[in-house]
Amino acid sequence: MNYEKFFGDALDRLHDERRYRVFADLERVAGRFPHAVWHSPAGPRDVVIWCSNDYLGMGQHPKVVGAMVETATRLGTGAGGTRNIAGTHHPLVQLEAELADLHGKEAALLFTSGYVSNQTGISTLTKLIPNCLILSDALNHNSMIEGIRQSGCERVVWRHNDVAHLEELLKTAGPDRPKLIAFESLYSMDGDVAPMAKICDLAEKYGAMTYCDEVHAVGMYGPRGAGIAERDGVMHRIDILEGTLAKAYGCLGGYIAGKSKVVDAVRSYAPGFIFTTALPPAICAAATAAIKHLKTSSWERERHQDRAARVKAILSAAGLPVMPTDTHIVPVFVGDAERCKKACDILIEEHGIYLQPINYPTVAKGKERLRITPSPYHDDGLIDRLAEALVMVWEQLDLPLGAKSMAAE
Amino acid sequence: MNYEKFFGDALDRLHDERRYRVFADLERVAGRFPHAVWHSPAGPRDVVIWCSNDYLGMGQHPKVVGAMVETATRLGTGAGGTRNIAGTHHPLVQLEAELADLHGKEAALLFTSGYVSNQTGISTLTKLIPNCLILSDALNHNSMIEGIRQSGCERVVWRHNDVAHLEELLKTAGPDRPKLIAFESLYSMDGDVAPMAKICDLAEKYGAMTYCDEVHAVGMYGPRGAGIAERDGVMHRIDILEGTLAKAYGCLGGYIAGKSKVVDAVRSYAPGFIFTTALPPAICAAATAAIKHLKTSSWERERHQDRAARVKAILSAAGLPVMPTDTHIVPVFVGDAERCKKACDILIEEHGIYLQPINYPTVAKGKERLRITPSPYHDDGLIDRLAEALVMVWEQLDLPLGAKSMAAE
Ligand SMILES: Cc1ncc(COP(=O)(O)O)c(C=O)c1O
Ligand SMILES: Cc1ncc(COP(=O)(O)O)c(C=O)c1O
Repeated sequence: MNYEKFFGDALDRLHDERRYRVFADLERVAGRFPHAVWHSPAGPRDVVIWCSNDYLGMGQHPKVVGAMVETATRLGTGAGGTRNIAGTHHPLVQLEAELADLHGKEAALLFTSGYVSNQTGISTLTKLIPNCLILSDALNHNSMIEGIRQSGCERVVWRHNDVAHLEELLKTAGPDRPKLIAFESLYSMDGDVAPMAKICDLAEKYGAMTYCDEVHAVGMYGPRGAGIAERDGVMHRIDILEGTLAKAYGCLGGYIAGKSKVVDAVRSYAPGFIFTTALPPAICAAATAAIKHLKTSSWERERHQDRAARVKAILSAAGLPVMPTDTHIVPVFVGDAERCKKACDILIEEHGIYLQPINYPTVAKGKERLRITPSPYHDDGLIDRLAEALVMVWEQLDLPLGAKSMAAE
Repeated sequence: MNYEKFFGDALDRLHDERRYRVFADLERVAGRFPHAVWHSPAGPRDVVIWCSNDYLGMGQHPKVVGAMVETATRLGTGAGGTRNIAGTHHPLVQLEAELADLHGKEAALLFTSGYVSNQTGISTLTKLIPNCLILSDALNHNSMIEGIRQSGCERVVWRHNDVAHLEELLKTAGPDRPKLIAFESLYSMDGDVAPMAKICDLAEKYGAMTYCDEVHAVGMYGPRGAGIAERDGVMHRIDILEGTLAKAYGCLGGYIAGKSKVVDAVRSYAPGFIFTTALPPAICAAATAAIKHLKTSSWERERHQDRAARVKAILSAAGLPVMPTDTHIVPVFVGDAERCKKACDILIEEHGIYLQPINYPTVAKGKERLRITPSPYHDDGLIDRLAEALVMVWEQLDLPLGAKSMAAE
């Protein structure tokens, strides 16, 4: 049997559809972010990163790096076991307490990633609720979709952010059926925000539980950085909040926060939590330092919003098709996989600007785009150079310039 | 709807079955392993860890800690993105090359954990093979079982390590059906080893692919620490090797290694790989340091085996029911969930010895045990004190002493 052929064929399909991905080998330099070294096929070159999800640059913050270094030196590198067998360590216990406090919940539970928290969290939760119906937003992240699939529960999809449609489906399900509404607070590819309060109203009206992924919002929104739910004053109305430590907090790991019993049940039943090694002490300590810092410091959040607004303004003024958002995400419309990839190749090779094409399946076909994520450390000069480079690339690739093209979305 | 009740009921079931788990809050001290501080309800206390899966104590090795500290200082804490979007960094690329070299394979692919590598690795691989039949060892780890389940493929289970049964099933499947044999090299709860060469013989005879989890063997067996397959001279005959960086290598993360096309297909199609943040640079650099060190240093492996042999000898001489194994795992039979838990409570409270009860579902009911994992750093004095404490506990709980009880298994 020629097994390799199966895999070769699978790869050929990606090449044919221009979806084969090549990863850029980067080396960030602490203290110099967003500058980095790109290990290109032709040797190392300086580049500016414009697509990092270390949104606030906390991955290089002296307090965060300091906590990692101090803890690794004192406690070693790994946790050495699963949570139950020798793997629960003090910095992890402290981090879970910090997260519960952040979200004003009774308890929090840490996973190896945000992906795993959604996947094993949602499937475990809903398996414990007899006959649970899951109402899932149409644009939910793959990790939520996998969690829903593995739950084996019935699932209905509501049109993205469409509360009228959600209400219809809740009504159809009837009051006696247990229900979980699963959604994100901030959708990372379009940069739009869920109508949180309205979703909570409906959940209360129809007796549903709510599960909200705040992965792209924690650290960045709300007075203490707890996310959109905090900003909108509905944090106490969401049953389970899910977040990551790998984006605005600059580290690694994911979590859920909620009532003690809910969290304890997931802790006790979730295979993706039970049967895996716990996160290292140094990672947990670094994440705690980042959360603590962003609970009181608003400088990063304010500067972040200021930078995002400036990028949108400068790029729009240059006639680039910036897709309108209310958040820190700046999508620029391309609408073609090949040219989206080509634009990025030219940007890094000729302009030292690192952006990654956002193509299918991350977004729908025809909705290909560049996705720009300014950080507090992208200064005016860098923004101006980004705009100039984009305009040159747009002309080179014969992509439409002029504010009107924005309507393409 | 009273949702909390569902979760409360689920927890009550665990309490009723004496399966509710309480995690011990530990603080290891680099340089003093296996000594640690236990944050007990009554305050911090010194304990000796006897159940860590940091089997070789590499989590405190100066080279490993040094690499983590140096890299965090230089490159910051997090990767800042998924592998495709800004998250592929140089230490990660170097680690993947190191892993491919370790196993003598064309390529290797890193995941956030060993759990995730099995789960998303197996399900992705087998989805790409039309009509694949998965032949799974009866004692495979939960992460493999979840991967198999998610693949949607047909699965048949062969009796644990029973190659005659495996052959029967292969024969029944017929030569034209694509087949994957999934198994572990070293089973961590019984400490027994798969008949690797025979499994390879059968795979070749019947045209099946082989997937082997070496999570509890990498670093510890084979002249360069590549695992049981290396030790047994069959590494080149296994198609996909899977391992962890969180046990003998003392860090975090998991991986697969195999032919370029196979690895590239998983890289390109596996959702649990694509849609999650990459491992931090400092973790990757620490893991690389551990692998490199154990490729040439045999001291840890030899001393590890020596310590395991001594624990077995001393405990057996004291009449404790040591279950026979050929490996570094030393299971001591209890056969009762309640007393297994009680034994561990007394050990930590009265003797400062930390062991975790191994109860259902980790092992079958009636097979409850203590699972002792000696490291190179457990000296003769610690072993003697362990034996004395166990004998006292055995008498206290009226558990049978005397070599005969070993046959309980
Ligand atoms: C909405 C959403 N949820 C969850 C995740 C996964 O989080 P993590 O990177 O911590 O695995 C991501 C992306 O990575 C995401 O975009
Ligand atoms: C056989 C086996 N495979 C995989 C894993 C998962 O590895 P990791 O801890 O890196 O997630 C474990 C235990 O943790 C295991 O025992």
